[in-house]
Amino acid sequence: MANKPYSYTAIQAIQAFSANTLTVEEYAKSLIQHIENRDPVVKAWAHFDPLQVIEQARALDSLPREKRGPLHGVGIAVKDVIYTKGMPTQHNSPIYQNDQPELDAASVVMLRNAGALILGKTRTTEFASTVEGPGTSNPHDPTRTPGGSSSGSGAAVGDFQAPIALGTQTGGSTIRPGSFNGVYALKPTWQSISREFQKIYSPILDTLGLYARSVEDLELLATIFGLKDDSPPVPPSSGVKGLKFAFLKTMVWDRAGPGTRNAMIKGAEILKSYGAEVTVIDFPAEFAKLPEWHTCVLYCDGCVAFRPEYQTAKSQLNQFLIDHVEEKWGYTRKRYLEAFDGISALRPKWDAIAERYDAVVVPSAPDEAPVGIESTGSAVFNSMWTALHVPVINIPGFKGENGMPVGLSLVLPRYKDQQLLAVAKEVGKVWETEGGWRSARS
Amino acid sequence: MANKPYSYTAIQAIQAFSANTLTVEEYAKSLIQHIENRDPVVKAWAHFDPLQVIEQARALDSLPREKRGPLHGVGIAVKDVIYTKGMPTQHNSPIYQNDQPELDAASVVMLRNAGALILGKTRTTEFASTVEGPGTSNPHDPTRTPGGSSSGSGAAVGDFQAPIALGTQTGGSTIRPGSFNGVYALKPTWQSISREFQKIYSPILDTLGLYARSVEDLELLATIFGLKDDSPPVPPSSGVKGLKFAFLKTMVWDRAGPGTRNAMIKGAEILKSYGAEVTVIDFPAEFAKLPEWHTCVLYCDGCVAFRPEYQTAKSQLNQFLIDHVEEKWGYTRKRYLEAFDGISALRPKWDAIAERYDAVVVPSAPDEAPVGIESTGSAVFNSMWTALHVPVINIPGFKGENGMPVGLSLVLPRYKDQQLLAVAKEVGKVWETEGGWRSARS
Repeated sequence: MANKPYSYTAIQAIQAFSANTLTVEEYAKSLIQHIENRDPVVKAWAHFDPLQVIEQARALDSLPREKRGPLHGVGIAVKDVIYTKGMPTQHNSPIYQNDQPELDAASVVMLRNAGALILGKTRTTEFASTVEGPGTSNPHDPTRTPGGSSSGSGAAVGDFQAPIALGTQTGGSTIRPGSFNGVYALKPTWQSISREFQKIYSPILDTLGLYARSVEDLELLATIFGLKDDSPPVPPSSGVKGLKFAFLKTMVWDRAGPGTRNAMIKGAEILKSYGAEVTVIDFPAEFAKLPEWHTCVLYCDGCVAFRPEYQTAKSQLNQFLIDHVEEKWGYTRKRYLEAFDGISALRPKWDAIAERYDAVVVPSAPDEAPVGIESTGSAVFNSMWTALHVPVINIPGFKGENGMPVGLSLVLPRYKDQQLLAVAKEVGKVWETEGGWRSARS
Repeated sequence: MANKPYSYTAIQAIQAFSANTLTVEEYAKSLIQHIENRDPVVKAWAHFDPLQVIEQARALDSLPREKRGPLHGVGIAVKDVIYTKGMPTQHNSPIYQNDQPELDAASVVMLRNAGALILGKTRTTEFASTVEGPGTSNPHDPTRTPGGSSSGSGAAVGDFQAPIALGTQTGGSTIRPGSFNGVYALKPTWQSISREFQKIYSPILDTLGLYARSVEDLELLATIFGLKDDSPPVPPSSGVKGLKFAFLKTMVWDRAGPGTRNAMIKGAEILKSYGAEVTVIDFPAEFAKLPEWHTCVLYCDGCVAFRPEYQTAKSQLNQFLIDHVEEKWGYTRKRYLEAFDGISALRPKWDAIAERYDAVVVPSAPDEAPVGIESTGSAVFNSMWTALHVPVINIPGFKGENGMPVGLSLVLPRYKDQQLLAVAKEVGKVWETEGGWRSARS
């Protein structure tokens, strides 16, 4: 490991702590220095206090070996819609400026129990609910967006400012930044990890999301958070050779630009060249309404979610969120229920389709990250999977026409998260080797 | 209004404040005195600080008239799984003893915006998730349970210690205490009111619940919380005359004792005698698994919900909740999804059945409140409705063999909450007149 500690994956850091070749404090200082170097450009953080990080690091170093958790000392960035003791939680909203109730979200409790080093809070679009960028730049080209709403978490991991990070996804807020920043991103099965004290947008859609620069790091997080398939995952025995993949362009394929079109072609070619079986599939016709149903559920749920802020401080609320509360789009409760029940009926149908394959490959985003940091881009390729509650992982590996990362997603049925990770590990190896983009290069 | 102010309904208190015949401070003092008289017996409160109540009351009195909200000055009791600034939120768990993060749940934000006087926090079973009573007694017979998990909220309203209260329901935690304490209780349509910062047990089941001693008070709360049907409610023009009611005993009718059996008979007779049409219906066969599906979803969701507390302080967690996390009942993810998807498919089917009637009448509880405060009783008659997401209101009006209150529930399709209240008002009038129990007598 000739690289500097800040560039380590979680597993590499754990190995270094274990081998006594690195203290958590030294590691923290390396991260702090790198963050301070890069922050003027990337602006990933909503709250970052080096002294607080050093203090935590020292406390972790002083723990006797037998009291150290499985994530002992590993730095993690937390999206600023997830509550943390000792740090403000501001949701990129003036209403919550400097607000710091002393409580940890369920996910943060589990991370602290595992020994994580909480580095700080990462920037988000307002309440993780708009597409207006929070000022964060893409670390691979600061004129471009890192995506959103987990803008800071995606950018921080892509820029080696944190090995792992927490995001959230209601539409495409975890997977899209994964693709734009060239890192692995996991949206687990809905309700497989508690969302306690993570800002609500839509109870039926909101999901905690995870970022890392390796699948092994995501496996570690998945275990800490208790993700469990009915059967233990079966790791492929010969790489991707012999595995069956379906490629699914989805009903919004006309939104795909050259970067994603090329990645879908190249991704299939690489898998075939390594001996995998590739089939092209389409959604059955009854899935056609999925995107509009997702939008209907989202906007109606947002009406409920933002009513308190609307009452308290409407003038400080984004117009898009005001529109939710004022029911601008005119959805009736009847249409909401059609959408809610319609999606519900599709979930087992999708599971039955997906379980025929080792994974289904779908686009992660329309294209590489667009120019401009004002808008975080479109969730059009993600929202259907959020609605279906299935586990999705973004795998980096490709490049767009401007040299920016482009990922593809693997999807499986609900509660096959561990199996998805096992397959993703093999797919990531060949795509990162042959596709033109590597998540872990520094 | 010859009664003492503490005994006023919310509407009566508002009228008195409006007419300048009562200040909020005088009203608060009346409530405080009554609470202090009764608390040694009923023990409804987990947190009650008279000075804090007086301080709030004075602040409300000092508000200029044009700044007063629709709930100006009205006392409200808040179940202790719902977060409140300035008061501890302890979940009846030693893990959260004296815990007081400074944030308000979404429901509390809306109440404060409306001008409510937050009286304190009411006792709950541990995390609103067990049936072990929190020491609260039934105000109508202290040897009996007030029900649970919203034990303190139901008892406080039944005992005139608060005109209105917040509860929650995941199984039967709002409706059962409504029946046992002889008050009105509304479980609105799922996700019609934000549950932000209300302890999570099951995201797909948890619902905020409301208590009052009159339907008018519930209507006021429903408006403040933004409950809205697609069409404005149509209040019955001649009482219950000409209305169509279905009576549904449900698949767990063998669990009904004499109090509930008698109430179902008497309830139908009274409605008929006032000119309503009464039909007896059964669930279609496909609804048979609803109770076991509810249990499966509940226990599996609890596994996710209590993992953080389990990791942090297992020794301080109730064995029943430890069993959730340790998956004692052995539910697979496959069975969870069968239950989750099975319930989802039944929701529109139930709506289609219920919309043929002005309301469907169902039991609220197996019987009057049982003797003993150790157990809060059974949610067997409630959990199916929680799972179906429909609005349910408990209407008091009957008595059991020991003179304790027995209620019946009205149910309608999802998002017919306002219509349900309009019908409940008329049903309540005739049942309270003829049935043997009156919610508002002091």
